This record gives sequence, C-alpha cells and structure tokens, in this order.
Amino acid sequence: MQLSVDPDRLLPSDPAQRAVARELYTAVADLPIISPHGHVPAQWFAENARFPDPTALLLTPDHYINRVLHSHGVPLERLGVGQSDFSEADARAAFATFCRHWKEFRGTPMKYWFEDQLAGVFGIDLVPSAETADELYDRIDALLATEEFRARALHDRFGIEFIATTDDPCDDLRYHRQIAEESWDATVVPTFRPDKYLEVARPEWVADVDRLAEVSGVDTGDYAGWVGAMEARRSYFTEHGAVSADHAHLDIGMLALDPAESEQLYAQARAGSISAADAVRLRRGMLFEQARMAAEDGLVMTLHPGGLRNHHTATFERFGPDVGADFPVRTEFVQPLQPGLDAFGTNPNFQLVLFTMDETTFSREIGPLASFYPSVFAGAPWWFLDTPDGVTRYREAVTESCGFGKTSGMIDDTRALLSIPARHDMARRLDSGYLARLVTEHRLTMDEALETAHDLVVRQPRRTFKLNGKDDQ
Amino acid sequence: MQLSVDPDRLLPSDPAQRAVARELYTAVADLPIISPHGHVPAQWFAENARFPDPTALLLTPDHYINRVLHSHGVPLERLGVGQSDFSEADARAAFATFCRHWKEFRGTPMKYWFEDQLAGVFGIDLVPSAETADELYDRIDALLATEEFRARALHDRFGIEFIATTDDPCDDLRYHRQIAEESWDATVVPTFRPDKYLEVARPEWVADVDRLAEVSGVDTGDYAGWVGAMEARRSYFTEHGAVSADHAHLDIGMLALDPAESEQLYAQARAGSISAADAVRLRRGMLFEQARMAAEDGLVMTLHPGGLRNHHTATFERFGPDVGADFPVRTEFVQPLQPGLDAFGTNPNFQLVLFTMDETTFSREIGPLASFYPSVFAGAPWWFLDTPDGVTRYREAVTESCGFGKTSGMIDDTRALLSIPARHDMARRLDSGYLARLVTEHRLTMDEALETAHDLVVRQPRRTFKLNGKDDQ
Amino acid sequence: MQLSVDPDRLLPSDPAQRAVARELYTAVADLPIISPHGHVPAQWFAENARFPDPTALLLTPDHYINRVLHSHGVPLERLGVGQSDFSEADARAAFATFCRHWKEFRGTPMKYWFEDQLAGVFGIDLVPSAETADELYDRIDALLATEEFRARALHDRFGIEFIATTDDPCDDLRYHRQIAEESWDATVVPTFRPDKYLEVARPEWVADVDRLAEVSGVDTGDYAGWVGAMEARRSYFTEHGAVSADHAHLDIGMLALDPAESEQLYAQARAGSISAADAVRLRRGMLFEQARMAAEDGLVMTLHPGGLRNHHTATFERFGPDVGADFPVRTEFVQPLQPGLDAFGTNPNFQLVLFTMDETTFSREIGPLASFYPSVFAGAPWWFLDTPDGVTRYREAVTESCGFGKTSGMIDDTRALLSIPARHDMARRLDSGYLARLVTEHRLTMDEALETAHDLVVRQPRRTFKLNGKDDQ
Repeated sequence: MQLSVDPDRLLPSDPAQRAVARELYTAVADLPIISPHGHVPAQWFAENARFPDPTALLLTPDHYINRVLHSHGVPLERLGVGQSDFSEADARAAFATFCRHWKEFRGTPMKYWFEDQLAGVFGIDLVPSAETADELYDRIDALLATEEFRARALHDRFGIEFIATTDDPCDDLRYHRQIAEESWDATVVPTFRPDKYLEVARPEWVADVDRLAEVSGVDTGDYAGWVGAMEARRSYFTEHGAVSADHAHLDIGMLALDPAESEQLYAQARAGSISAADAVRLRRGMLFEQARMAAEDGLVMTLHPGGLRNHHTATFERFGPDVGADFPVRTEFVQPLQPGLDAFGTNPNFQLVLFTMDETTFSREIGPLASFYPSVFAGAPWWFLDTPDGVTRYREAVTESCGFGKTSGMIDDTRALLSIPARHDMARRLDSGYLARLVTEHRLTMDEALETAHDLVVRQPRRTFKLNGKDDQ
Repeated sequence: MQLSVDPDRLLPSDPAQRAVARELYTAVADLPIISPHGHVPAQWFAENARFPDPTALLLTPDHYINRVLHSHGVPLERLGVGQSDFSEADARAAFATFCRHWKEFRGTPMKYWFEDQLAGVFGIDLVPSAETADELYDRIDALLATEEFRARALHDRFGIEFIATTDDPCDDLRYHRQIAEESWDATVVPTFRPDKYLEVARPEWVADVDRLAEVSGVDTGDYAGWVGAMEARRSYFTEHGAVSADHAHLDIGMLALDPAESEQLYAQARAGSISAADAVRLRRGMLFEQARMAAEDGLVMTLHPGGLRNHHTATFERFGPDVGADFPVRTEFVQPLQPGLDAFGTNPNFQLVLFTMDETTFSREIGPLASFYPSVFAGAPWWFLDTPDGVTRYREAVTESCGFGKTSGMIDDTRALLSIPARHDMARRLDSGYLARLVTEHRLTMDEALETAHDLVVRQPRRTFKLNGKDDQ
Repeated sequence: MQLSVDPDRLLPSDPAQRAVARELYTAVADLPIISPHGHVPAQWFAENARFPDPTALLLTPDHYINRVLHSHGVPLERLGVGQSDFSEADARAAFATFCRHWKEFRGTPMKYWFEDQLAGVFGIDLVPSAETADELYDRIDALLATEEFRARALHDRFGIEFIATTDDPCDDLRYHRQIAEESWDATVVPTFRPDKYLEVARPEWVADVDRLAEVSGVDTGDYAGWVGAMEARRSYFTEHGAVSADHAHLDIGMLALDPAESEQLYAQARAGSISAADAVRLRRGMLFEQARMAAEDGLVMTLHPGGLRNHHTATFERFGPDVGADFPVRTEFVQPLQPGLDAFGTNPNFQLVLFTMDETTFSREIGPLASFYPSVFAGAPWWFLDTPDGVTRYREAVTESCGFGKTSGMIDDTRALLSIPARHDMARRLDSGYLARLVTEHRLTMDEALETAHDLVVRQPRRTFKLNGKDDQ
C-alpha cells in the first residue's frame, strides 16, 4: 500500500466549500512560517545539528507519539525514553514497534503529521507497518545523514522566517548569540520561562533562586531581590531578542499582594516553612508581578494554564517530567485574571496571550476577554486541541466574540523540528476550510476571506508577539 | 465594493440541505416578530422617538460594538460613551473610527446584524470603510430625520406583534400605560426586573428598598415587608401587562430559608452589618421567594445567571455598568435550582426559562431539566452565544434531550431597536438550517420540519411566556 | 401519513460523505450485537418472557419517554408508573396520550428509536398520532402475543452474541445459571453493581451490609470483613461469567486510606454516626478498594459518575428512583481518579472504562487519560449523550487524542430490549458517518476506514471487556 497525501487533505468535502477553501489555501500555502512559541533547542541551529537515527529523532522525544504507544501497553523504555545506552538494534526495534501499532494512530493528528513529514520532508511514500518498518527506518536514516537534513538546511527549506525557543531565566543564551553573530540569515530568539522560580514549595526552589541571584548579580534573599533579579534576567533576554515570557502553572491566578505580605511569604518560602496554600498565594503574587514587568518591559506575556503534571508517580520517578503523564483539568480565566487585567488590561504596552486545554473556555471566557481588553489575545489551540477538529472548534468558538484580529495565529509549540511545516500547513488548511464555510454561507465575501487568510498567517502572529514586520499594523 | 446581502445567507452550503432550508425559511420569513424579552425603552414608543445621529443610535449605546472597538485600542469616550457634550464632529469622527475598523468585525454577528440593517432597514449598499464613512453617516443621518424612521413606524414596519421592555420594580410604567391607552395598535409590556433589591450588600441597597417601600406603600423595614412590597409591585406590573419577571445574578442559587433566619439576615442587611457570605445566602432566599411569588401570580420567571459584571474597575468607575466589561463565568443549574424546582417544578402555574452564557450547560443541565420539569424551558442562546454558530450549537445540544417544545423561541434581548428584524431573521435562518439537516438525515419529514419551523417562531414564545395567541396550545 | 424509515437515515447529507458512509455502514450493518453493559433482566431470558401490553412494555418502564411526557405536563401515574392496578383501559389511554404528544419527541433519539422499532421489529408503518393510537396499540399488542416476540426469539432475531445484565452483589444469579445450563445458545452474563454498599450514609446501609454478610458468609462487622465479603461476591460473579463491575456515584473520587482510618470510619458508619464528609471519604476509600480488587480478579471496572439522583423529592417519594428526576452535573476525572490510576493505571490486569454525561470531559480528561494509561478506555456516549449528535461529538472529541483503539465500542445501557437493535444500528450509522468524513477529508484511506468500522463493532467491545473472541487482539 502506498502512502497517499492528498492535495485537498483537511479541506471540507462539500464541493462549494472545498473550491473556496482550495483557493484560500493556495493563496497562503507558501507564505513563510512565523513560529513565536516553540521548543526547538537553539543549540541545534547554532551547531547545525546532524540528527541521529529515526527513533532518537522522531519517537523517543515525542511525547505525543510515546503516550499513545504507552496507552497500548508499550513500556516507555522500549521507545528509548530515559535510556542512556539504547543500541542501534534497540532503536530499530522501537521503530518497528511504532510501525506495528500504526493503526492505533488513526484519527489522531500524530498520524496526520507523521504522514505529512514522510511525504513532504522525506519524500517517502511507504505506509508504516510491520512489513515496512525496516525499510522505512533505513531510508529515513540515510536521509538524516545528508547535508539537506541538518538543522539549518531544514530551517531554510521550511521557510521559517522567525522562530522562538523556550529558555530558563538563568540560561546564558550563548546559542542565540552565536546564531545572531553569524552570517546565517535566520531569526532565532529566546523566550523567558520562569515557572520554576515561582513554584516556591518545590524542594529545589531555594537552590534555584540562589542560582538566579548568582546569574543575575542580584541578591534573591528577599522578595524585592527576587523581583530585581527577574527584571535583570528579563532585560537580558530582551537584549537577546526575546519577544515574550511564557508561564505555565496549574492556575493563572494573579494577586496584587502588598509588599509586606510578599516579603513575609517569601521569607517563609526560603525557610521551607510556607504552607501549601500560601505557596499558591505567593505564586499568584509573583505572577501578578510578572504581568507588571511585562507592562513595563514590553515582553508579551503568554499563559498556558490547566495542565496537571506528573499524574503517574512511577512514570515520573523513572523518567522525569514531560513523558506523557500530564493531563488537562478544568480551567478558568475570567476570575483568576481579574486583578492582573484590572491593573494592566488597558495598558498599551501590555499584551497577554491565553492558551487553554479546556475548550469550554473558548466561547465562555477567552473570546469574551479578548473582545474587550486591548491587551488580551486568544491563543491558538494548544496541545490536545491542536488537532484538525480542535482547530475548527476553536475558530467556531472564539471568532464570533473576538473576530480574527484578536487571535494569535498558529503556535506550533513543538520540539519536533521536522513536524513544523506539517503543523503550520495543517492550520492554514483548517483556517481556509473555516473561512470557506463563512464565504459559502455569505457571511464573508471572497475578498474578505482572502485577506483574512493572509492575516492569520502573517499579521496576527506579528501583532500578537509585537514582531514589527512590514505587514503589521 | 458593494455590500451584498445574499438571500441564502446563513443557510447550509450543502445543496440538499440548502434547498430544504430555503423552503423552511421561506415559510416563516415573514411571520410577525414576538419579542418577549428585550431592552428597548417604552419611552421611545410612547413618544414616538425620532433618533439622533447614527453614532448616538448605532454605536454609543451598543456594547457589542463598543467592546470590539475597545479591544482594538479605541477608547470608549471616543465612541461617545459617557460623554454629555459629544458634538456632531465628534459623532462623525466616532463613526469614521468604527468604519476604519470594519474588518475587525469579520466573523462576528455584529457584522452580520449591521450589514443586514444597512441593507434591510436603511436600503444602503455601502461597505463601511475609511472611504465610505462620511457618505454612510450622511445617508443614515438623513433617513433618521424622516417619518419612516421614527420608533412607531419602525415597530410597524418590522412586524412586531408583541414586545416586552425591562423595568425597575419602582417604575410607574407611565409609558406602557400611555401606549396602552392610545389607539396605536401595538403591544408593549413591561418586565419586572428586581435584581438590585436582592443584592443586599450593595451600598445603595437600603436606600433602594426604602424607595420600594415608598412606591409600593408597604413598609420594607423587615423581611415580611420586603416580600409584601415585592408582591405589590409584581401585581402592579401584571396589571400593566407584564408576562414575566427577569433575574440576573452571578448564580441562581435558591434556598428555602426559614422565616426567622430571613428576618435576621434582612435586619443585618439593613444595618449594613451582613457578611458577604450571608448576603449571598439571603439573596438565594429572596430568589426562592420570587419563585414562590411566580408560582402564585403566574409571571413567568426568567433567569440570566453567570455574568461577572464590571470586571475592569477603571472602566466601571468612569463609565458605569453595561459598557462591555462583563464576562461569562462557569455556571450551574441542576444543583443551585434544586430547592426551587423541588418546591415549584411541577406547579402548573410556574414557568421558568433558563438562559446561559456557559454553553456546557446546554446538554448537561438545561436540556435535561427542561426534559423532566413541566415548569422548565430552555432559553434561547444568550449574549455571546446569540451568534450564527452559537445558535446552531444550542439546537444541537438541547434538542436531543428536550425536543423543540420546551425551548423558548427567539429572544433578542436587545436595546438596539433597528437590529431586531436582523436578529429574528438570523434565528429563523439558522433554525431552518438545523431542521434541514434533520430532514436530509431522515430524522424528520418535511411536514414535521415545516410545522416545527412555524412552532419555533409562533408557538414556543407564546407557550413559554403564556401569551394566549390563537396558535398557542 | 406513512412512517418512513429511510435506508440512509443518519448518514451525512453531503453526497461524497454519504456514498462513503453507506459503504462503511453496509459492511458492518449485519454484524452480531455485543452488549457488554445493559439492564435487561436475566429473568426475561431464563423464563423466555412473553411481554404484556404495549404500554407496560414500551412506555411505563422507559424513563427516557416518561420524562418527556412529564415535561409536557403528563403525570407519571397516567403512564402507569408506580401503579399496581393499571387496567387495559388505562394502558390504552396511556398509549393514546403518548401518541397525542408524538410531535414533542421530534429531534430526540426517543423518536428515532421508536420509529426504528416500529418499522424494524414490529413491521408497522403507522405514524403515532391521536388518530392512529388505537390501531397502533392493537397491532403491537397482537404481535406481543406471538412466539416471535418472546424474549429468546427476539434475542436470536436481533443477533445478540453477548449480553450483560446488571445485578446486586447479593443476587444468587439463578437466572444466569439457568440460562447457562440450558441448551439455548446465548451468552447472558451478570455485572457486579455494588453501589449501595458503598453509600454508607444511606439509612438502609447497615441492613444491606448485614445481608451481604449473610449471602457471602463473611462477617461485615468491620472494614476488613466488608472487603472480604466483596471479594467473595465478586468471585461468585466471576464464576457466573461476569466480565465487569459497574460503579455509579456522584463523583468517582478514589482514596488510598490507611487501614486504621478505614476501620474507624467504617465503625462510625455502622454506628450511624459518620459525618456526611466522612461518608464520602469512606466511599472513596471503598472505590479505591474496588479498583484494587479489579486489578486482582480481572473484572473490568466501569464508572458512571456525575448523575445527581432524585432531584425532585415528591417524585422520588411517590415513585421511587429511576423515573426521570436524575440530572447530570459537572464531572471530573483527572484529579479524582489520580490515586487509583497511580496505583493501578499500568497494571496489565486492570481495565477501567470511563462514562460521562458531562461532555466537556471528552476532550479535556477522558481522551487524554485513555491516550496515556493502558488501563483506561473511553466509554461510549452515555444517557443524554447517546444521541445522534452526541455520538458524533464524542468521536470528534476523543478520537484526536486517544484514537479509536481506546474507545469501548457501543454500550446500549438499556432495559428496553426491543430498542437494542435500533441503538446499535444508530451507533454503526453514526460511526460510519464520522469515518466517512475522515475519508473525504483524506485523513483515512477507505481501507483504514473499513477496518476501523469493523473494529468499532467487534474488536473494541471485546478488547475493552476482555471478551476473548476470535477477532480480539
């Protein structure tokens, strides 16, 4: 059986809608990729990485794929997760296991992205199966050894115009600096991600803020120092091209604590004596403070709440975080964000992008907030919702309150470099399909839809992340 | 570019569905408008108002439009909000600002309604833009000066058979009386809206209930008096044609408090010493009492919970309520309403209409409640959900549990008189589209769909709001 | 008017999708029925029941139909609910009431199932109405008197390959034993349903656990005894063919209590002195214990949370439970299940099927959990969601995270024997429609879709409920 990647894939099947969608998609298909929030390591680009075998590139680090195999009884270690000596034979066996379970991916975006990569990036038309596993492994492996598959060549081939990484505040950003100083024509910028310095009940927190003091040169022995150190590092990131700061906590409550209380709670946290409730309270105060800094230094604030991490203790203890045992929980925005929006919601220097894995908030909270506060943008569908039907439900749920002009544009949020074109292409197809429906239902003219399709790819990410390109307004 | 308002707008693009939908829509397009819950001031009709300039009519008071402009950085004062001396030049500039931002309304119902008004009410085919702003302003302005655009002429042209306003319990209803006493053939009735008298923690509450005493002639010094005054005013409203009482609180909890507790809490509220928690408790007791009154005096009870008001303090302090800083929050019906439905849910004199801005409650709570309790009706999509896709999701979510016969029919809930035909027409189109899908999927016959389309426009509002028209059953 | 049951009913109206859906449906339409969770009494099959009149069979016991009639003001007693002497005239009058209200069922699955039964099981093409009520009653009544309409003949005609009942732990399972010992070629197995023994605050609880002691021969005077008695009865059920244990509580919280606390709370429960909060805590400990047992004895654990029972006191007091006054409430899975999944989520002997009436959990919690934990399966749409649009929303919401291979397949969950073919046929049609969309959007090939359609009917229920049929893998 031959892999078929249809030119009309993901477009609506209704003939009238499909014709319109195809025209819209064609108009934006080849536009450059703007990726203002992702997880590809800057080191790959700085060192122009050559990728190891197919398993180490495509399976072991991809928790989207891992978790599905795990859910069908494949132990994570057999996929190379957490294995320091995973032989070529192991890697090949892991790849075969993946191919044997190929049917379990039907209906998921992982199947869609993988097929799109196979056809579009590797030029391979084999359907994964027990029979094709070895050939598939060998052909991908051979391609990965070529110059065309080194990190910079891929970046250029993919038409990436702008890409942001995600980095610890203590990171020295040497790779970003190296890229900026070289003649390679690419924009790779860091993103400030201070989560762990706000989770004061973590056992390693004191050591972490001590390190922050060391790196920033600001004493973090008290709360004012913590704030100063944060400001210093944010400034360092801004100097290295950062456009945003990203925050992912279970909730995104913000609280305007008075300084005395902040200092008192902070002292308790340093002493290891803070209660669980007060740790949350202090974190909310710290997040408010991050919003305040964002309103001052202009870094766009992005929020990714509602993920309950490390649900399965044995998996966490064995493999650490980010291997699939994270789950969405019920999330709210309107009430927890009130203090922050009350203070900064109409500040012209403040921009806030809201992401969710609880899609009930699209029409109930995120769309309405983005339709009033100039600072608020509705972030693209995230994680479990970054899927063909998820993207469409998102458009259906937010557009009617906040229009297109307060949505962030596509965010790939991925570490999987090779999937980036497939992900952006998927979004362009789905947005074209959604717009096509509005056209066929006479809610938009074709001219309006064409301009909007272009805006979603170019203007919206630039506007949302303050990228001052020529199409921004 | 010429504004195009297609005769098939909002109908499904699938050819089979569209043909059926068109036939259904055609059958109901010209039926009169029944509007049992809205916010058009009775004074407009009593005085046969002539409307001021386009901005004062269409922009300044419309928080749907305001908020979107505000979300794109337009200060509310530039739209005339809260401005006592807003010159003709200011108004014209505001209108131009709106037209310049026209593209930001794409995909929203505000665009849909506005275009429909332009074409259908004003007969204008200009697309709003920086270039057309002045001409558009002038042409609308000229029309507003004509007899055809005075309030009564519009009412008659729109085919409004019944319209309800929303009124404070202390209102003397003079405008309703005036209309009733004149020979003009229209039914304009008041709606009892006592919210502020139930929010006992409000600083102005004591003064408000004192005024209630004065107007009703019943001493509101104790809880029994508060109940008596409410009963008196409800009775006054009923005599003036009211068919319903409307309630909008953050939650719609009802509690059957014992009289001693009610009196005690009420005394604390009058003394200004009630706690926040007890103020909520007393309000729930008062809402239960309103349900009890409704079961006795027969006014239909409508509930609009889940709106968090005045989220942005600076906006509230500058402009007051209802200018856009209101947001939906998570809402529940099954548990909070239990005491009220336990007491009155099968009382044949009691009818309760449930509205929501949290669409998760459609299939989870509202549909199921309406499919058991004879008293409960599923209210039409409200506010952020009164949108093309929102209306369809509502039908998809409630019909399968409670059918069509326990839904309220279209509620426009609007102060924007000129948008009323567009709003009702939108609902008729969307319901026709939904029914057309059921027909093409062989879940309804065409005869059943035709009768249902008619029922949704005529029978359901009459049945839900006890309007004893000839088609009611 | 003649009842028409179209061969293409429920298939998408888009011509491309319909053609594909028809091909998929045709391939699975005649496969046997596997019904691993339902409520048909085993006694009917053991005694080869002959059914009484149409009302007693189709209306009185069906709370789906009852509640809709009740919501339109028909008292439940007029439908025979709770009536010990309901005459033939009463039954006929009840049936006529139902027929007169036939239009109120439009858009509901009750209409769909009833029409499908009329045409498919009874071969009758009359549309219910005031005019046809008597003839309809007579024709059904006459058929019920024939051999072809006795329980076993229906079972065989329907192609039921496997059917599970729901039974009290104290049940002696005599009817299951009788069926197993006879030559009739059918598989009718019990399901262990211990809810009431976990609700320790119920007034009858002490008597119930005393009875459990008696039946199991294990003293339930302390918690260890309660556990032992449960184990004994689960073992008894397993010996009689049970494949699963079913649990329905308001929430499905699990807690790993230490033995001393369990014993202490249990003693308080036996003494009638346990607090409401501790009763919930003990129940969560007991549910954790049921999960532990399931991991050991291998019975599949199914969870049906989120139903608030007996909302209307007067109805409950007059008619008892299960007559329609049950409603869904907001439900969570990720956090409440954490202790149970932490302990048993990767245990290869443990399988857990999650059902919900809160569809927000499909994409937010159930799909993600099933896409990581090998033990977790996404249960089919339940109760108010087992509807044409509900089923499609379920597929759209869970497939993109957990694929098809972690979904349970159709669960009819019904006591209405005659509706079983219609319910399974409905699911096959809707799944075919969903798959057809994936095919026309080029997300699945036709071969993949054909195999998946078959898997959903055969492999998934077998895999989920550990039925070791030949197609299982």
